[in-house]
Amino acid sequence: MGLWFTEKQTEDFGITAKINKTLHTEKTDFQKLDMVETAEWGNMLILDDMVMTTEKDEFVYHEMIAHVPLFTHPNPKHVLVVGGGDGGVIREILKHPSVEKAVLVEIDGKVIEYSKKFLPSIAGELEGPRVEVKVADGFMHIAESENAYDVIMVDSTEPVGPAVNLFSKGFYAGISKALKEDGVFVAQSDNPWFKADLIEQVFQDVKEIFPITKLYTANIPTYPSGLWTFTMGSKKHDPLQLKPERFHELDTKYYTEEIHQASFALPKFVKDLTEKKG
Amino acid sequence: MGLWFTEKQTEDFGITAKINKTLHTEKTDFQKLDMVETAEWGNMLILDDMVMTTEKDEFVYHEMIAHVPLFTHPNPKHVLVVGGGDGGVIREILKHPSVEKAVLVEIDGKVIEYSKKFLPSIAGELEGPRVEVKVADGFMHIAESENAYDVIMVDSTEPVGPAVNLFSKGFYAGISKALKEDGVFVAQSDNPWFKADLIEQVFQDVKEIFPITKLYTANIPTYPSGLWTFTMGSKKHDPLQLKPERFHELDTKYYTEEIHQASFALPKFVKDLTEKKG
Repeated sequence: MGLWFTEKQTEDFGITAKINKTLHTEKTDFQKLDMVETAEWGNMLILDDMVMTTEKDEFVYHEMIAHVPLFTHPNPKHVLVVGGGDGGVIREILKHPSVEKAVLVEIDGKVIEYSKKFLPSIAGELEGPRVEVKVADGFMHIAESENAYDVIMVDSTEPVGPAVNLFSKGFYAGISKALKEDGVFVAQSDNPWFKADLIEQVFQDVKEIFPITKLYTANIPTYPSGLWTFTMGSKKHDPLQLKPERFHELDTKYYTEEIHQASFALPKFVKDLTEKKG
Repeated sequence: MGLWFTEKQTEDFGITAKINKTLHTEKTDFQKLDMVETAEWGNMLILDDMVMTTEKDEFVYHEMIAHVPLFTHPNPKHVLVVGGGDGGVIREILKHPSVEKAVLVEIDGKVIEYSKKFLPSIAGELEGPRVEVKVADGFMHIAESENAYDVIMVDSTEPVGPAVNLFSKGFYAGISKALKEDGVFVAQSDNPWFKADLIEQVFQDVKEIFPITKLYTANIPTYPSGLWTFTMGSKKHDPLQLKPERFHELDTKYYTEEIHQASFALPKFVKDLTEKKG
């Protein structure tokens, strides 16, 4: 059989992938980092034993966390990514010509370093002239920012370890302050099959702060259950009320104008999570 | 660790589920049948080492293969299910009051027998007065039917073993003949991450026979990649041009009127599979 990586997505269920070789293993100041070459998914970044991204399916997550809020805003110029050290969100942001500056605030410099080395198709744009990379605590960066960004994406790990503060109501309040008056925010918010309570909590917390709060989904085969959610908070712009002329052609493999709309249509059991009392 | 079931969804990737106990194992005349109690998904039916259905996530597949074509047809009375011995599609069909007769043609009587025994929440409606169950070859049943059905669903296994004939152009031609003049047909057509060629082939084959051919998707966490496709062939009715009054309330956990529409919005790499030359 050889070497296989198995992620227990729950206590009783997981995925398993054949490994051609281990590229790097390290305990960083913040988490366990493994980079492996898999036979099915290409190179794979694993943090604390959870798949973060793979060369083969990364486009889904990165396109969907970036383009949905970026098209929701009419003219995004200043954009912040909290987390996302692999650089995939930055790569997608730079496809929008209106963007003048994309700031990445990643707490773990090792994620950036080894993504550049082993995931060049994902991290390759981190050096661009429109990009500013800071190795710092995203929570603190948000706390210190005011009226600074048009769009903020929170591309975090699970709410354990270094990302635990990124799933708190105080953080969402900080994001609101860091955004301009018509700013848009999105955070990855895990999956509805195994983490229903988390989705419910995040949605209610964001809803208390942002006038427009919506959940949308995408299919990511290497993430738990394959059905991933994103929670969007917007001060003014409704992602489902875009002017048709707002869209422009993009080089994508998942996102389309039609998918933008359809991703907000939720399976009934998922929709129910957004309709509970807070 | 105890006992785990691992399905290799490809040579190099799979899912793995903790088993509380094995309920039944048998080599039937057609395939290997395993029924196990899993810790995550409840009871699970496995044929030839592939997950067919589980108590926890079965509703997605069964609702989506049934309700999308049934609402596409304005007044479905006679409905045929080819395969589907677990009874889940029949259960969903019976939620439509217009249906007078639902016929199930399953080649392997053992699938019916053990589904009734170990999956009662799925198979429980197989005895109803509006249901006719035949243990027979679906390919032959189709060949012998003419102008008989309003809607036909093909709920088959993979195109290996007993189901290989159910993925042929001759079969789709037979289905067209077995349908009435405004009939609707749908077949499960696997996933776009690992079986892109199959989707492309099925779509082109169905398109040569049916004036309206569409692909739609659903998230099924225990199926390969979590993103499942269904190919619909329709003689007259367009699933995206339904009269609003056609919908009626249904007791579902996944399907909604909004999901009906949204499920036809395809990720770009999936849409591309439907636009290739035949």
